[in-house]
Amino acid sequence: MSDTKVVAVILAGGSGTRFWPLSRELSPKQMLSVFGKTSLICATIERARMVASEAAVEIVVGATLLDEIRNHLLAQAELADVALDYIVEPVARNTAPALALAAACIEAHDPEAVVMMLPSDQLIDSGESWKATMQAAIEAAATRDVLVTIGLVPTRPETGYGYIKAVEGAAGPGALPVDCFVEKPDLETAQRYVAAGNYYWNSGMLVARARVILAELEAVADNARIVEAARRIAALPAGERLKAASFQLFESLPKVSFDNAVLELSEHVEVVPTTMAWSDVGSLLALEDLTRPDEDGNRVIGGGVAVDSHGTLIYSPQRLVATLGVRDLLVVDTHDATLVVPRERAQDVRLVTDALAKREAPELREPKISARPWGTWTIAQEGAGFQVKEIVVTAGSRLSLQSHEHRSEHWVVVAGTATVTQGETEIEVKTGESVYNPIGMLHRLENRGPGELHIIEIQVGDYLGEDDITRYDDDFCRE
Amino acid sequence: MSDTKVVAVILAGGSGTRFWPLSRELSPKQMLSVFGKTSLICATIERARMVASEAAVEIVVGATLLDEIRNHLLAQAELADVALDYIVEPVARNTAPALALAAACIEAHDPEAVVMMLPSDQLIDSGESWKATMQAAIEAAATRDVLVTIGLVPTRPETGYGYIKAVEGAAGPGALPVDCFVEKPDLETAQRYVAAGNYYWNSGMLVARARVILAELEAVADNARIVEAARRIAALPAGERLKAASFQLFESLPKVSFDNAVLELSEHVEVVPTTMAWSDVGSLLALEDLTRPDEDGNRVIGGGVAVDSHGTLIYSPQRLVATLGVRDLLVVDTHDATLVVPRERAQDVRLVTDALAKREAPELREPKISARPWGTWTIAQEGAGFQVKEIVVTAGSRLSLQSHEHRSEHWVVVAGTATVTQGETEIEVKTGESVYNPIGMLHRLENRGPGELHIIEIQVGDYLGEDDITRYDDDFCRE
Repeated sequence: MSDTKVVAVILAGGSGTRFWPLSRELSPKQMLSVFGKTSLICATIERARMVASEAAVEIVVGATLLDEIRNHLLAQAELADVALDYIVEPVARNTAPALALAAACIEAHDPEAVVMMLPSDQLIDSGESWKATMQAAIEAAATRDVLVTIGLVPTRPETGYGYIKAVEGAAGPGALPVDCFVEKPDLETAQRYVAAGNYYWNSGMLVARARVILAELEAVADNARIVEAARRIAALPAGERLKAASFQLFESLPKVSFDNAVLELSEHVEVVPTTMAWSDVGSLLALEDLTRPDEDGNRVIGGGVAVDSHGTLIYSPQRLVATLGVRDLLVVDTHDATLVVPRERAQDVRLVTDALAKREAPELREPKISARPWGTWTIAQEGAGFQVKEIVVTAGSRLSLQSHEHRSEHWVVVAGTATVTQGETEIEVKTGESVYNPIGMLHRLENRGPGELHIIEIQVGDYLGEDDITRYDDDFCRE
Repeated sequence: MSDTKVVAVILAGGSGTRFWPLSRELSPKQMLSVFGKTSLICATIERARMVASEAAVEIVVGATLLDEIRNHLLAQAELADVALDYIVEPVARNTAPALALAAACIEAHDPEAVVMMLPSDQLIDSGESWKATMQAAIEAAATRDVLVTIGLVPTRPETGYGYIKAVEGAAGPGALPVDCFVEKPDLETAQRYVAAGNYYWNSGMLVARARVILAELEAVADNARIVEAARRIAALPAGERLKAASFQLFESLPKVSFDNAVLELSEHVEVVPTTMAWSDVGSLLALEDLTRPDEDGNRVIGGGVAVDSHGTLIYSPQRLVATLGVRDLLVVDTHDATLVVPRERAQDVRLVTDALAKREAPELREPKISARPWGTWTIAQEGAGFQVKEIVVTAGSRLSLQSHEHRSEHWVVVAGTATVTQGETEIEVKTGESVYNPIGMLHRLENRGPGELHIIEIQVGDYLGEDDITRYDDDFCRE
């Protein structure tokens, strides 16, 4: 067992609709830092490294989200020494094709490797209980040709989760054979499950050898072409995997979850029960855990004021939100969008994002603050033919050497000192000073420290899209 | 009668708490333009001029609001040919001292002048009915030594207004003698008033000769010193009226309303009943009149989306506000603050502004967009040691010739062409170009047209308050 490789695979494909307006299509839930010092995905990677034997961590992500996730993870100081590999889903096809692709990529190097498939958007305490649980799961997966799931001992009759029903009798140390999976139950059924004692919340984590994952998929006739497609794409060099042929191949696969396609049908599934602190952060109600209620049951995070209100959460880190005379309401506020919803409807935020999708609302897609490997940018003002951003560059970082075809940029330094490259020259621009990059000018912004550099950038031009950028050199290997 | 002067006096002293977050201390309800093309005060001035004989309009305003009201009215193109005089209350002392001061100022020139005292924050249709009503009131005031009120024929048993009870028998054409004033009634009493037929909503408007207003005040022993103080201040040259002596004198007066101090006690009060379209725009519920409800009773003004909601108003002209599963809620959103309140509690917004006053919230005081005689400015971004504004200058306008002691300013032209004076030089700055005003530099910004000029101003300095400005020349005579 000691020579078995344990590879962490982080599933980062979440779409971020249940956490709107905090999450956006380009900044889904796993990228939120509201629940701790770092984002959920960053914490997941750190936690995975506690039990993985391989130094590199595999990130499974959709093509549309790749840049954002990559920029986000490059910006995390905690991950500075972590090698991150990206396994890119050419197009979203639910979890069965995604897991098949990840397993096929790992199988290509080592079919016997034990793979830990971990959702990137859960909140889990990374203490001893986490380590013990995952070590038991790895032990089971390394010892037997089985798919090992992680099941939470239920603490309440939750109707929002699926349950795993275990059979009596140990399959191995800390692991039980699984009888069946059951979908989200009604309250009465959930109460019966909790009382029965052999039902566990399905955490969505999976541990198994790469070879076993693919074999269990292939054992179901319908899935054979998923495995075949996954192996064909995995056999390509990484640079080839996103080309049209792979896209078409992947797009032809059925949209099916791994639970439906395999776990619910296989006879070779085990569960490691655990009591570790775990939350799937499934709805905006999870924000309530961030602070204690006052005597009226109100929770105020940020610039809120709850007057004559009861049981109400105001989450508004940047702006002022006031409630008067309301009860059991959630108000979640961001720079550009605010959501008002009763506590009991927090699960239904998808109805709002559906409505926003219909009207192609930009607030569905883009966050106002975008993380970059070198810092952040925030849109401060927009108008016809111009855009104003505040750019923050961390000490020691620099942006790519770049030029734009359609816009000129004025940079005014409002804190720190900028080192600006323009063509062949390099100049220092101090607080209160400015510099101008005409259309087509080769330029680069750098912060040699010691503190943060804050720039106000005024873009003027006939087209101001993020894609009007030609990069000539980049510390972060972006194109 | 034809040689009787009719002077319009606009009472612009409202504090703007009932309309928060739309109104602010420095931008109270009368300055809001949400109910029509122009602000309520601008519409009031235009309406007053339809029936006044004097070209000049008198504005009664508190010292703290003078600059804002003045800037606001200077910016109204509709008022370009109107001479506005300001009668400044040195300190707020409710309506009896304010009306006494206004009457005394007019009496000093012509004791026989008929004064129309009009609240600046009401919404009234300026058609024939308005003219006929006011002409009847002016006729009554010119013919008899009485205080003439305007009473609305009630269309519903409103509990939010005071009522005027008329006596049978005409006092003159269109005017009835008043029996008494009654405070806001309960619903049952209001229903009785409406059924009785001789009760009218108290509009708060008053028409009377200047001499009569002061005489009626003096007739009540308690008010004698109010009239004496008003006459003493009115006798001073305008420039002297705001000095410490006037301030102390006015501050020593009792805080009492003209209704309590005079109207409820005088035997010489008449009412002109009218059915003209009138609203006192008393609470945020007035926003509901701006648009028709959809089939679920929702009203959405601006960038809102009401999902699975009923009877809900979303007023959010700039940002996206979404409601999900709520009922009978008002959500009123501005750049920097959002209020959520059930319809039935809309009258109680004062509880919120009280809470904000306690914590000295800047959102209580300042609007994010400030009107100036030459255009507007909007705060786009703020941070330690810097502030970014978007400045819009109307065609043909220019700011004052000015300098700052504590901040430098970068101006980037994002639309139009700026003519910039720096010391003795004048330069043209085109769209996409910028100019820098170091600390202490004499500078001026001008828009010679033809269109609007849009500037992004980045202020950098150790102090960024609006009062760090020395003006050397100003088209609007500001100091």
